[in-house]
Amino acid sequence: MKAITFENQQVQLKPQEAVPTCGEGEALIRVLVAGVCNTDLELIKGYMGFEGILGHEFVGVVEACSDTTWLGKRVCADINAACGVCPVCVDEKNPHHCPNRTVIGILNHGGAFAQYVKAPIVNLVAVPESVSNDRAVFTEPLAAAFEIVEQRPIHPHERVIVLGDGKLGLLIAQVLSLSTPNVTLVGRHHDKLALLRPMGVATRNSREESLDDLQKSAHVVVEVTGTAEGLDLALNLCRPRGTVVLKSTVAEGKPLNLAPLVIDEITLLGSRCGPFERTMQALEAGKLQPEVLIQHRFPLEKGVEAIEQAAQKGTLKVLIECG
Amino acid sequence: MKAITFENQQVQLKPQEAVPTCGEGEALIRVLVAGVCNTDLELIKGYMGFEGILGHEFVGVVEACSDTTWLGKRVCADINAACGVCPVCVDEKNPHHCPNRTVIGILNHGGAFAQYVKAPIVNLVAVPESVSNDRAVFTEPLAAAFEIVEQRPIHPHERVIVLGDGKLGLLIAQVLSLSTPNVTLVGRHHDKLALLRPMGVATRNSREESLDDLQKSAHVVVEVTGTAEGLDLALNLCRPRGTVVLKSTVAEGKPLNLAPLVIDEITLLGSRCGPFERTMQALEAGKLQPEVLIQHRFPLEKGVEAIEQAAQKGTLKVLIECG
Repeated sequence: MKAITFENQQVQLKPQEAVPTCGEGEALIRVLVAGVCNTDLELIKGYMGFEGILGHEFVGVVEACSDTTWLGKRVCADINAACGVCPVCVDEKNPHHCPNRTVIGILNHGGAFAQYVKAPIVNLVAVPESVSNDRAVFTEPLAAAFEIVEQRPIHPHERVIVLGDGKLGLLIAQVLSLSTPNVTLVGRHHDKLALLRPMGVATRNSREESLDDLQKSAHVVVEVTGTAEGLDLALNLCRPRGTVVLKSTVAEGKPLNLAPLVIDEITLLGSRCGPFERTMQALEAGKLQPEVLIQHRFPLEKGVEAIEQAAQKGTLKVLIECG
Repeated sequence: MKAITFENQQVQLKPQEAVPTCGEGEALIRVLVAGVCNTDLELIKGYMGFEGILGHEFVGVVEACSDTTWLGKRVCADINAACGVCPVCVDEKNPHHCPNRTVIGILNHGGAFAQYVKAPIVNLVAVPESVSNDRAVFTEPLAAAFEIVEQRPIHPHERVIVLGDGKLGLLIAQVLSLSTPNVTLVGRHHDKLALLRPMGVATRNSREESLDDLQKSAHVVVEVTGTAEGLDLALNLCRPRGTVVLKSTVAEGKPLNLAPLVIDEITLLGSRCGPFERTMQALEAGKLQPEVLIQHRFPLEKGVEAIEQAAQKGTLKVLIECG
């Protein structure tokens, strides 16, 4: 089968000898559409030391499965493949943090920029008929946004600020708007901020507008810029005893001043992957419009170009049509 | 009255023209004993831009008060003097974070290294007869330790690691031992670690013993070393979805790697001042032995020497006997 691989520091379209082999408890999925994520771009820079088939945001159709009820169904799949038998999986019921886990397209598990990908059956989530492929392909990053409210429920009276108008910031602002009408997205790009205003999200362009009136105002600030300056600003905008959610790894190399965290007793909450079921329910209910982020589409054969396009500064979602 | 002041970059014994003037709602307290805290040493280095009478850990006797029921009573006092009328005080019931607050001996409020100090009546806590001055003088830092369990209750089955065997680390390990038998204190000093072993606290000397077996083991790690290395280690010892409590400001100038916080979805919790009532109840119940930290005593006249002694590396608690 055809696949986009990262090997020996190189991204390429590389034919594979065979489709992935599925064992008991696994499903073989024919990939329909996949999305390029910033994590893919980080992997190409050396993050996690990954080598293999890239891609972890996808929607596809089950082609082979030991549980035949899944055959022919359109699905998304949680990317964390846990062992299911260790204390973290069994006692703590915390498979997303299984120390033996593989992660589709990220850690010891082939990815979805391919004609076929495999996933554990327990990871599958059926895509309802009313949810288009263009929406379903966003399930994984939307789930990462829902993880925030799983960890720290947000109430309708609370004020939320999302810092960063990149792909994930735009999805998070949408998802948190389901919990409170008081979401402000802070970014630096007119066109990106404009995408969310019709959805009732307030916006500020930090290049042009002061944020002084927002100081210590937010119950929850979500930092998605991935910069030390973003974290400083987040601590500044968060009210005492509020929560700053760290959704992307802050670039190393810059000292951080955590004194405000102690003085204002702020909770800094690391947040990663989230719940697929809850996300799919929200998509089915028509509450989210992630497809406004789609800017480019490439066939699998041009997957290398797709990734190059995604790496261009300012690009939102690039899709790879695999089948 | 006599007082130890920090003015023009200088710590000195400086006679004051008068005792503090008390308004409605305030009490004048004759100080019996005060303790030197690391925060005092930080203030002398320029922290908070403080000038005035130092000292915020103390026990004394009420000499004047508009509420006469307090007269003659032995008391400690919460150091955060809130305005009582702003939204943070009234709506959020969060006076410790009042934006208009003064803080005894730290922010726009004269301190307790003096014959007299004043405090709001609402801040007073009576010292039961069974609690000696040598124990009561630890109420403020012990309250800071109890703040941890106010913010993040600790259950008996949970494993806790305290990083740092300085004054605050030793008090925190004692206080958290009231919640769980599984507290390990990690430090670098035989003599300090030995102080807590009779209290049932496990200890590790990180200069001599490996911590490898503790990796990702703790539900809660309290970082009290105030170093970037300490925070790195704390993130390493904390289990996925666990909590790292940041109790002292991490020295600036060193880049921090917060990637483990995101990947392991760790909660980093800033923690400052705590509940005096709860602390006094624990002291009255005889559950804490903070006095094992006392190493030196100086009369108020030698308060400058007391602070110099406290600044010597490795010194635990230095007391100033004021009256």
